Amino acid sequence: MHVRRLRGRTAPWIEQKRLKSGMARLVLKFGGTSVADLERIRNVARHVKREVDAGHEVAVVVSAMAGQTNRLVELCREAAPLHDAREYDAVVASGEQVTSGLLAIVLQEMGVNARSWQGWQVPMKTDENHGAARIREIDGSFMSERLAQGQVAVLAGFQGISPDNRISTLGRGGSDTSAVAIAAAIKADRCDIYTDVDGVYTTDPRIVPKAQRLDRVSFEEMLEMASLGAKVLQVRSVEMAMVHGVRTFVRSSFDDPDAPQNDENGTPIGTLICDEDELVEQQVVTGIAYAKDEAQISLRDVADKPGVAETVFGPLADASINVDMIVQNISPDGKTTDITFTVPEADYERAKKVLEDNRTEIGFQNMEGATDVVKVSVIGIGMRSHAGVAAQCFRGLASKGINIRAITTSEIKISVLIDSAYAELAVRTLHSLYGLDG
Amino acid sequence: MHVRRLRGRTAPWIEQKRLKSGMARLVLKFGGTSVADLERIRNVARHVKREVDAGHEVAVVVSAMAGQTNRLVELCREAAPLHDAREYDAVVASGEQVTSGLLAIVLQEMGVNARSWQGWQVPMKTDENHGAARIREIDGSFMSERLAQGQVAVLAGFQGISPDNRISTLGRGGSDTSAVAIAAAIKADRCDIYTDVDGVYTTDPRIVPKAQRLDRVSFEEMLEMASLGAKVLQVRSVEMAMVHGVRTFVRSSFDDPDAPQNDENGTPIGTLICDEDELVEQQVVTGIAYAKDEAQISLRDVADKPGVAETVFGPLADASINVDMIVQNISPDGKTTDITFTVPEADYERAKKVLEDNRTEIGFQNMEGATDVVKVSVIGIGMRSHAGVAAQCFRGLASKGINIRAITTSEIKISVLIDSAYAELAVRTLHSLYGLDG
Repeated sequence: MHVRRLRGRTAPWIEQKRLKSGMARLVLKFGGTSVADLERIRNVARHVKREVDAGHEVAVVVSAMAGQTNRLVELCREAAPLHDAREYDAVVASGEQVTSGLLAIVLQEMGVNARSWQGWQVPMKTDENHGAARIREIDGSFMSERLAQGQVAVLAGFQGISPDNRISTLGRGGSDTSAVAIAAAIKADRCDIYTDVDGVYTTDPRIVPKAQRLDRVSFEEMLEMASLGAKVLQVRSVEMAMVHGVRTFVRSSFDDPDAPQNDENGTPIGTLICDEDELVEQQVVTGIAYAKDEAQISLRDVADKPGVAETVFGPLADASINVDMIVQNISPDGKTTDITFTVPEADYERAKKVLEDNRTEIGFQNMEGATDVVKVSVIGIGMRSHAGVAAQCFRGLASKGINIRAITTSEIKISVLIDSAYAELAVRTLHSLYGLDG
Repeated sequence: MHVRRLRGRTAPWIEQKRLKSGMARLVLKFGGTSVADLERIRNVARHVKREVDAGHEVAVVVSAMAGQTNRLVELCREAAPLHDAREYDAVVASGEQVTSGLLAIVLQEMGVNARSWQGWQVPMKTDENHGAARIREIDGSFMSERLAQGQVAVLAGFQGISPDNRISTLGRGGSDTSAVAIAAAIKADRCDIYTDVDGVYTTDPRIVPKAQRLDRVSFEEMLEMASLGAKVLQVRSVEMAMVHGVRTFVRSSFDDPDAPQNDENGTPIGTLICDEDELVEQQVVTGIAYAKDEAQISLRDVADKPGVAETVFGPLADASINVDMIVQNISPDGKTTDITFTVPEADYERAKKVLEDNRTEIGFQNMEGATDVVKVSVIGIGMRSHAGVAAQCFRGLASKGINIRAITTSEIKISVLIDSAYAELAVRTLHSLYGLDG
């Protein structure tokens, strides 16, 4: 059994808020591969036109043409390996500027009233953290006015304007965040993320061919999946969607824009990320995620005294190393403790050095580590009200002889750290175990 | 004898206004070939650093990297042959945005305090004539403040902001105009145009190897030369320099930035375009220019009555066809007249059609035309006070058997229209005749 396929339902659920009036306000977001050349930009324009012809108000958010951002980033690196982030932003944001103008031209050519908007024109106000700025405030009133007049807004994604009147960018992948933020600002009924996959799956289809596309998933579940490496949506955009309640629909941009948008059951082809309340049927487990770029560090025989965790994790935080799973056990003699945790694989050597440098303060006997580990997670909002989900997981992995190095759990997630050699086996086993195979 | 070489002078004339304080405010402008790649941008940065190290306040205006503007223009054309000029501007202006950021990065890497400025950040306010906007007003106060604090301003050329808060561009070659305009706004002592030639010559050195670089030329003379096809500077930028009295120095960007900037006589290597008062020695003739992209149209036996010129040139003006030389002669019988004029070669067929469509109103007997013509001009501010310059020209051409199709003159210019086969011969003859050979 797979979850949340709305078989038997015939009425599409989209635009439910404004369905009665027949009109909705939509934000459509297209990534770099969807606007890689003019042929694809024309395909994007046909998607936009379809929504306009259906009577909707449409704002579009575009990324730079595929390859352009890399070209511009490389130019900055060549100019100086360490460069002023404000200048980097001015250079790199030009990619989205180009795409926004081109899409507006193509839309006009199709008879659609459209104009481009740069981040500073909206304005999309961010903080001063150039290169990875956070959106502070968007005045959507002017754009809303134009939308209400029937003009399509084509927004250059990924960029805003900082407090010192300079161009800022939101960091790589920031166009998703732009789209969700503008959707919140203009009170859009839905934010459609057009991407190179047709939705969010119960797990990675490359590992489990039986993986099913989810029709709906809650913000909380998506957040766990995104942060665990299901790279459909940037984590920040999901956080923002959750905070502002922006219903976000992930769908393929490569579909024929004129083909039916719903499947044979009348269900739109894609995945709606929405509030828990909109989920039709709560399943216990929604998906299985995994993250390969983890590394494990274990400190043995640490003196078990108050404040020891701080001596370990304080210096790591100071070095901007993100610690994920943390497990602490009391040793048999009750006087020392073992601490195990994970860090991003890229920070592994640096983390070990930081700990070695602080060996005296921490007082551990020896340090062990491994990079050939993988974190596998079972995610489901339904497990909040279902006991035994974790036990089922451990039993299932044990039955295949998979050793668990560490375990952490949250309200809607169980994560286990295992040897990376067992990654695929573990994912397939759990996917089947929780009834996610088709 | 060639004109205006300041041989024997040892004191350089540059920065004369602020020379006593040792500090000047300069605008340096670099075109697309000068910033074509990072190596050349580094060379540009060294030119900038030399001026900064000399104690000057420096604002730099840059074009897009060579080839980028064409790439962007082509993308717009592919998007739609007829496209919204506002969107074209957003797309095309991104090229200068990239260069301004990169140069700022490279300057910072060299230890020079620098930042990029986009047109909308200055702001460089233009009219709403997108694609070929004219500068209306520049508030240079904020930039001046930064310059006075020792920060180099790197301005994206060619662009501004229109009254509706959209990006505007000044038309191809507009970076020269940006540079002169910003020089006027920040009251710069001089605007240095770094280009792929080392100055303005008495004529095209490809035709006359003995052509001499001019040390100085007046605004008026430069205007005539620029509009006649000496493509060193955009005509609009010279007009603007003249109106605002911006001393403009044309020089090569490919020189070694650390080599001596003056020749063996202490004269800066380049050409200063300045007010007539600054010319050291007024020569009669300064240069010989030619324009090949002209076409001639002659209307025969037009009824010689009041208002006939209006019936000819009114419709051409309505069709935005630029008419240049106009010659009208009364025919022997005194009842009809012949009208000859030139139009840009690109508009030749269109002009003939406009005239044919208005044949009844104009009332001409027949129309003749030719595209294999060239306009050769003798230019010199000194001819205002010297008689016989024109007669000398006609005599010189006649001695070589060159037939003159039409003649027009202004205060400082004599232009003749001749068969294009004689173009080089005519230019060489006149260059020698007025003593311009070295």
